Amino acid sequence: MSEAYDIVIVGAGPVGLMLAACIARLGKYKIKHIDIRPERTQIGRADGIQARSLDILRNMGLKRPIMAYNPGRIYEVAFWNPLQHGKGIHRTGTWKSYPEFIDTRYPFTTILHQGRIEKIFVEDLERMDIQIDRSWAISRFKNEGEDLEYPVQVDLIQTNGEAECAVRTKYLFGADGARSFVREQLGVKMTYKDPTIHMKCTVHSDSGSAMIIPHGNNVVRVYVQIKSSDKGQDPRRMATESRIQQQANDILSPYRIEWDRVDWHSAYPIVQGIAERYTLDQRIFMGGDACHTHSPKAGQGMNYGFLDAQNFAWKFHLVESGFATQAILHTYEEERKKMAQKLIDFDAKYAALFSSRPPSVSEVEDAVRCKDHGEAEESNEFVRTFKQSTEFTSGYGVHYDPNCLNWSEAHPAKSPLFSPPGVKLLPGRVFPPVTVTRVSDACIAHLEQEIPQNGSYRIYIFAGSPATTSQAISDFATNLQEDNSFLSSYRRHDIMGPIPYHERHNPHSLFFTFCTIFNAPRPAIEINESLPGVLAEYRDQVYADDIKSGGVSKAKGEAHVKLGFCGEKGGVVVVRPDGYVGCTLALVEGAGTVQGINEYFAPIASKPLGGACVG
Amino acid sequence: MSEAYDIVIVGAGPVGLMLAACIARLGKYKIKHIDIRPERTQIGRADGIQARSLDILRNMGLKRPIMAYNPGRIYEVAFWNPLQHGKGIHRTGTWKSYPEFIDTRYPFTTILHQGRIEKIFVEDLERMDIQIDRSWAISRFKNEGEDLEYPVQVDLIQTNGEAECAVRTKYLFGADGARSFVREQLGVKMTYKDPTIHMKCTVHSDSGSAMIIPHGNNVVRVYVQIKSSDKGQDPRRMATESRIQQQANDILSPYRIEWDRVDWHSAYPIVQGIAERYTLDQRIFMGGDACHTHSPKAGQGMNYGFLDAQNFAWKFHLVESGFATQAILHTYEEERKKMAQKLIDFDAKYAALFSSRPPSVSEVEDAVRCKDHGEAEESNEFVRTFKQSTEFTSGYGVHYDPNCLNWSEAHPAKSPLFSPPGVKLLPGRVFPPVTVTRVSDACIAHLEQEIPQNGSYRIYIFAGSPATTSQAISDFATNLQEDNSFLSSYRRHDIMGPIPYHERHNPHSLFFTFCTIFNAPRPAIEINESLPGVLAEYRDQVYADDIKSGGVSKAKGEAHVKLGFCGEKGGVVVVRPDGYVGCTLALVEGAGTVQGINEYFAPIASKPLGGACVG
Repeated sequence: MSEAYDIVIVGAGPVGLMLAACIARLGKYKIKHIDIRPERTQIGRADGIQARSLDILRNMGLKRPIMAYNPGRIYEVAFWNPLQHGKGIHRTGTWKSYPEFIDTRYPFTTILHQGRIEKIFVEDLERMDIQIDRSWAISRFKNEGEDLEYPVQVDLIQTNGEAECAVRTKYLFGADGARSFVREQLGVKMTYKDPTIHMKCTVHSDSGSAMIIPHGNNVVRVYVQIKSSDKGQDPRRMATESRIQQQANDILSPYRIEWDRVDWHSAYPIVQGIAERYTLDQRIFMGGDACHTHSPKAGQGMNYGFLDAQNFAWKFHLVESGFATQAILHTYEEERKKMAQKLIDFDAKYAALFSSRPPSVSEVEDAVRCKDHGEAEESNEFVRTFKQSTEFTSGYGVHYDPNCLNWSEAHPAKSPLFSPPGVKLLPGRVFPPVTVTRVSDACIAHLEQEIPQNGSYRIYIFAGSPATTSQAISDFATNLQEDNSFLSSYRRHDIMGPIPYHERHNPHSLFFTFCTIFNAPRPAIEINESLPGVLAEYRDQVYADDIKSGGVSKAKGEAHVKLGFCGEKGGVVVVRPDGYVGCTLALVEGAGTVQGINEYFAPIASKPLGGACVG
Repeated sequence: MSEAYDIVIVGAGPVGLMLAACIARLGKYKIKHIDIRPERTQIGRADGIQARSLDILRNMGLKRPIMAYNPGRIYEVAFWNPLQHGKGIHRTGTWKSYPEFIDTRYPFTTILHQGRIEKIFVEDLERMDIQIDRSWAISRFKNEGEDLEYPVQVDLIQTNGEAECAVRTKYLFGADGARSFVREQLGVKMTYKDPTIHMKCTVHSDSGSAMIIPHGNNVVRVYVQIKSSDKGQDPRRMATESRIQQQANDILSPYRIEWDRVDWHSAYPIVQGIAERYTLDQRIFMGGDACHTHSPKAGQGMNYGFLDAQNFAWKFHLVESGFATQAILHTYEEERKKMAQKLIDFDAKYAALFSSRPPSVSEVEDAVRCKDHGEAEESNEFVRTFKQSTEFTSGYGVHYDPNCLNWSEAHPAKSPLFSPPGVKLLPGRVFPPVTVTRVSDACIAHLEQEIPQNGSYRIYIFAGSPATTSQAISDFATNLQEDNSFLSSYRRHDIMGPIPYHERHNPHSLFFTFCTIFNAPRPAIEINESLPGVLAEYRDQVYADDIKSGGVSKAKGEAHVKLGFCGEKGGVVVVRPDGYVGCTLALVEGAGTVQGINEYFAPIASKPLGGACVG
């Protein structure tokens, strides 16, 4: 019998590595990870980590090794344009990377070349005993379905031809880049846009365009646009170091650029494309460049690939660990393909708008001014487009459409408690930064980062004023423990007696973790008195909404106000394991709130839940 | 001839390591560093890094390796006291470690045991090619003065007796702990306080006192007070693990404490003492436990030792590199001994106040409320004492008295421009946290951390409104370049042509670096247009005071307002290389401002300066 795996990952670039790193955090999965290259990327290639990706990497404990490199941080971008009559270039303005309306703790793009990014992942995987088989390629694969548990057969071959092997697997994921073998074998077509030459335009001149990206430590990357005189010519052969330097100086004239040392250079054609399908059979999947390629203008290729990997990992896990039905795997292509498509469409629109005319000063001012999402649609097209662009490039513009994971009125769950009036959180959007005080040790806590990426749904109980909600909280706890509640149905039975420290996030179920946030000063909260036993056991996840940054009256907790919850009555948020809001509910006395959550999970759960059971 | 060194450092605990790390950053000094122990501390011992120490470590690039350990962070302290009639203990309150009136970016104590702290320093020193000779002791030393350049003779011996050597050195620094051989040989007496048993009192019970310190990662350190029945008994022998556990449970009753594993335990008597002198001859110095020991209550031993080392290092450097006369070395004992004395005196006062009665609720509330230092002296003794205690334990309460480094009316410099009205910065105090935007790359910058600890005086030009101050700035630049100005007198001559990146802090002089902060939005500042050439060459040290955290009207820069400078006219701050304010001056048209700075430096400078020359 050939060896059997939970997943075979093809490709160890950023997307394949992210996927392995995510899955390894979710459980003891048997992973076969191969890469055709004899060693990892040493330097160069992708380099921009958007704010949302940094959130995710922090949630995986990988932000500190990134920051240890003292990477470049881009807060603003400067725009240079040609002077009239061929007199060189001048700076026409600077813009913030992420204006204030992007609600992020990291209002900058982090610049680190792909060699270092891969190194951080590889070291992380080594700590978890995951090895990458290098110089191995995939030669054939088939979802034959004969073996019901491991339906996919995969043939592997060493690149020197000296060894071959065949393995069986539950899933195959192709993160094998723009020239994906997996995609080619599946016969999935790419839809290509016409090649565009609009770079992320820091410099436009009569000699072409250039972009300069600071990498930190006095290293910069220069992108220059080189037109091939002959369409058949290999750009890699043409783009010598001296040719690149000459071209950069032509573009930057009358300024001159020199350098001491070149760490890396490369040439590539700009092609934007998207695969028609990300999977054919819910067993063999693709992500990253294997199914979407972008212009470097927005610097999004790696970041959208990261989100593909993260999105797939938790859905795979919830199915394989027995919580969810296979139906949720359909949401991978549904959610991620639409995002890639939107980015490509937007890119064309953005480029077109900019090439038609430069924006006026007042347009730029309007664009960067902080505005609520709730406000009337912006009428000026430039301003609207600029705002959209920062939402795309920060990663916070991702909002998934309603489906079985993102509640809407079309969802089978019909409780009137969903999406209570006033609440600003929308299903399918990122749960935003919220700063509170942890009760157990009085540390300032970034609520959205309090649960590591471990495959659990994060249930935040905004408990309002303790005097008002004590009955509602007590009823919530009682109903949590009823037979057939979402928690009781998926309760773990391997923890008896005191909860060990390393199990503090998941003392009752591997699929749910609870955070309770009171609108009260920290010293007023006694965990054992303020909370019923089942919630008090999450003792490191009880918080006080008592941090005052100004602007909100003393009686109201800033976190409650920010999310639109009543400071008295509170409310509940169910956040998906990837940090996106699943649904929001009113917190009421009686069984309603827990029943609502039962209903929310029922369509995807492997077991019948509560009164809303579907089984 | 015996080998010659710039400095011999005896002891490689936190103080000796800090000194070596500081000096290695200041220049190519030849350091002989010995330690009697065969290897560094592995675990245990000192564990609390105060906020001010963390500032300094960040300034040396050592904060990231500390944070990589995910250390404990103490934001609040809980107080437990006995119930009446021997019924156990109850919690009577919690207090913030550093209330809001302590102006720090890190309102917590960082907890990392000494083994890790030493490891971070040792690795840092290895990167700078500094080795520690372990299992070596000092057997004899003498400042014989025969060799004028290297007047101190030091005899060293291997602890196994197998090797000996003699070296010559310019300076000898004893960081050899509470049982300092250097101190003993010098015949310097310690003045001891009566032993006190008042611990930093998290728990008082009828069975004694205990303190619990979270170390992060589910590790805690427990301090318990053990009374020896027999005064001659060695506490280390008596304090077995089981005895400590028993005692902890007696104190904590009716609660119970158990543990899985003990990483480290030790016993020590609490003795507070201070050496009568820190140096006899300005060649042989001591610091840290070698000249002051404290009760663990305030957790300050290592921190005050760090400040000793940092204080000595830059003064040593300014003398040895030819900027200052030897007279400034006198300020080491003067500044640091007074601090240690104040801490010891305060400790007694604090303990006495607390043992007399617990504070009332309103007293605690008054104490933690944020108040300006400028307000009328607090009348309630408890509140006053509590405030003082947090100033001591945060490290921000350090304020050095007037001397040749800290300007006052008694200083020889008499310009009427010093300490302009309204300015809140006081000479001898820490330059506080100030957040601005760096113009060159639009990054948010922590101004007080922008210059690494490199031995330079930091001259901050708060340039107010560019329209108002352009003539004053231009005059400042002109006078900087006059013969005999402080800058011209100590100009380096080894940089010709473009300034290399790694010399960006000190393009003109190794002793001065300039930062210019305009009260204007970042996009309005063009470095080459807004600044004369000499200041424009510090292009990475030009800032916009344009960050709005609220509360200040749009016309005024928050940094200008915070420090008390006029938003129109600005002003100048000279900050010592260790981050303490030296003097402040008005920024005026004409020669006055630079002349004032010349006068300020004249008493310590090795060369005559400006019109105020003393030579």
